Amino acid sequence: MPTAFTACGVVTLMTDFGLSDPFVGVMKGVIFGRHPGARIVDLTHGIQPYSPREAGFWLNRSFKYFPAGTVHVCVVDPGVGTARGILAVEAYAQLFLAPDNGLLTALLNGTADARVYRLDTGRLERLHLPVASATFHGRDIFAPVAAELAGGSCRPEELGPPVTAWQVDTLAAPEQSAGAVAGVIVTVDRFGNLLSNIETRHLAPLREPVVYAAGRSFPVRRTYGDGAPGDYLALVNAFGVLELAQAQGNAHATLGLERGAAVVVRGQ
Amino acid sequence: MPTAFTACGVVTLMTDFGLSDPFVGVMKGVIFGRHPGARIVDLTHGIQPYSPREAGFWLNRSFKYFPAGTVHVCVVDPGVGTARGILAVEAYAQLFLAPDNGLLTALLNGTADARVYRLDTGRLERLHLPVASATFHGRDIFAPVAAELAGGSCRPEELGPPVTAWQVDTLAAPEQSAGAVAGVIVTVDRFGNLLSNIETRHLAPLREPVVYAAGRSFPVRRTYGDGAPGDYLALVNAFGVLELAQAQGNAHATLGLERGAAVVVRGQ
Amino acid sequence: MPTAFTACGVVTLMTDFGLSDPFVGVMKGVIFGRHPGARIVDLTHGIQPYSPREAGFWLNRSFKYFPAGTVHVCVVDPGVGTARGILAVEAYAQLFLAPDNGLLTALLNGTADARVYRLDTGRLERLHLPVASATFHGRDIFAPVAAELAGGSCRPEELGPPVTAWQVDTLAAPEQSAGAVAGVIVTVDRFGNLLSNIETRHLAPLREPVVYAAGRSFPVRRTYGDGAPGDYLALVNAFGVLELAQAQGNAHATLGLERGAAVVVRGQ
Repeated sequence: MPTAFTACGVVTLMTDFGLSDPFVGVMKGVIFGRHPGARIVDLTHGIQPYSPREAGFWLNRSFKYFPAGTVHVCVVDPGVGTARGILAVEAYAQLFLAPDNGLLTALLNGTADARVYRLDTGRLERLHLPVASATFHGRDIFAPVAAELAGGSCRPEELGPPVTAWQVDTLAAPEQSAGAVAGVIVTVDRFGNLLSNIETRHLAPLREPVVYAAGRSFPVRRTYGDGAPGDYLALVNAFGVLELAQAQGNAHATLGLERGAAVVVRGQ
Repeated sequence: MPTAFTACGVVTLMTDFGLSDPFVGVMKGVIFGRHPGARIVDLTHGIQPYSPREAGFWLNRSFKYFPAGTVHVCVVDPGVGTARGILAVEAYAQLFLAPDNGLLTALLNGTADARVYRLDTGRLERLHLPVASATFHGRDIFAPVAAELAGGSCRPEELGPPVTAWQVDTLAAPEQSAGAVAGVIVTVDRFGNLLSNIETRHLAPLREPVVYAAGRSFPVRRTYGDGAPGDYLALVNAFGVLELAQAQGNAHATLGLERGAAVVVRGQ
Repeated sequence: MPTAFTACGVVTLMTDFGLSDPFVGVMKGVIFGRHPGARIVDLTHGIQPYSPREAGFWLNRSFKYFPAGTVHVCVVDPGVGTARGILAVEAYAQLFLAPDNGLLTALLNGTADARVYRLDTGRLERLHLPVASATFHGRDIFAPVAAELAGGSCRPEELGPPVTAWQVDTLAAPEQSAGAVAGVIVTVDRFGNLLSNIETRHLAPLREPVVYAAGRSFPVRRTYGDGAPGDYLALVNAFGVLELAQAQGNAHATLGLERGAAVVVRGQ
């Protein structure tokens, strides 16, 4: 049985909306209208447009730094307005809301103790949700539901039927074989470092691992400083994720590797 | 008589300051100094520099998602330091502060039930406002006044004399004629969609409307998906605004249309 | 003796992390986990990567707009993971946390009434800090320490030993001589204005000052409008800082001056 969620009032938001329009601000207005005591944190709104994988990657590496009872809202939703469902996941004593598009794959892969519900707004009549627009469920569904959950006036199990099947992103986790693990680049940070879906635990079985990508090999080092300027290297970052970097350079710009590119680690 | 404003503690900020300097952060410091319980929401700070029209457009589409008693602060202010006035508008049970430069045109066009005041800092001696700098009224006037309003220690009618005339942006609303409506592009979103000043209600009188811009015609569709990839189309978005889009493309980049460009809708 | 710091619950954050990843959001999660009542303000996360000088410049011009009892966290930290120390400064009834890399030079130059401590996490066992990663002290050290300070459950003098020496950025302040002051460009704003480290008080001794940079001279004006479009000019901005501007233009783009460039002001 998972640790139950008891609201603490913190709501995080992660979207691909950017910050140059008031889309995110409007979601916060809706939240404060329903739960005046909410404490709202922007995880990021700079997710690559239409990339549930990148959003799920960051959600899965970020949630553990938030207090029990946090509600996480992730709206990276290319299927908005279609028949795609919305999932509510109760896990780690926290609550996660996201479209059923694979975004939650990494999170759900990481625990056997999750309760997953499929949102059924028909059951939520007493919340007086607005009629949803075709294109902005962040404002019309996610924000009000998150506010009611964060305020404690609605429980996860009221949101809809429990489900045991959902969309899976098969590239959210790497493929492990004897002596090797094969992953992909998931995101690129401000410094041009290329972050993969390969984690510390995937590397553990490999003896003296070497990383291969873009026809090159990358030695695994402890920090960015463990190379002469311009050297390429790999390291496990502060989120436990394997990344490719160039010492005092920009690996993204100089290697030409993009999201989705293959990364393989082999033991000797 | 308008619904009276009673402060709820929420303050929204919209500016053209961007986020790479601490200008916005400093405004929040001033607000917390005067009203420790304020809940501050960034609407956006990515307004096109010097574009009161774009700010007014978004303010008018955003405010209704905020609770009664919200104070909205909009600082897009090319005339800062000149003799331009500052308006305080009490409407919809909310309070709006902005320079008197046309920014509030769309908001004021939308209601006959607004009370408009012209800020007179001479009347506000008891608030101990700082001596205003020539270039940063957001920090020196807007933020402290908003904080006092949001904290309930100052009432709108104390801010200055009621006025019945103000600067008007004649392009804030489209021009309606028999069988057609003529508007302009006001803003561009992250996906390259071109948003106009034409709304659902302007389209209502038109039978089978077709949109014309940049020497092309655009069929009116329900969603972005109602076109083959690369097709141009028009639709009414989640804010009730007519926009031009390219299915799975970027209308802004491929059409070369900019803010201010003409858009006409004709019925058949 | 400096005015003592008594926590008011406000925490400001300034970093060079940008906003496209959840690094900043994760720091906020940590803060709310330890101090649920914190009110967090982003000063900016757009500091030029690896530029403690730019961060220190803005911190020194921003803090005075925050209430007594604010905790300021500045993480621009090229030396993260090395032996560089972390300083805690109690001054102006506020508290400042930053790496010992020169970032606090301008702040410390401005007052004789500061108490400076060097963080010793070994003394903070009762706070149960996590084992620090090699690359993200913002999350592992700065955020939790700031939260405990802001919540009043830890006092500055508990953080570590008082120190009287620290890293100094010799370019944080300009050099004053008889009849002239020599400074540098520290940062560039959204409008292309070039902000120097020269302040009102440095100009005071100069009669009819003229500014020289990039082989040109710049007259000192009161506002941006005091020049024909395209004219270059200098002015003292709302933060009391001398900047170079182009009337209705972009001085950064047209002059080719970058951060670090020399600026000299001479009296007649």
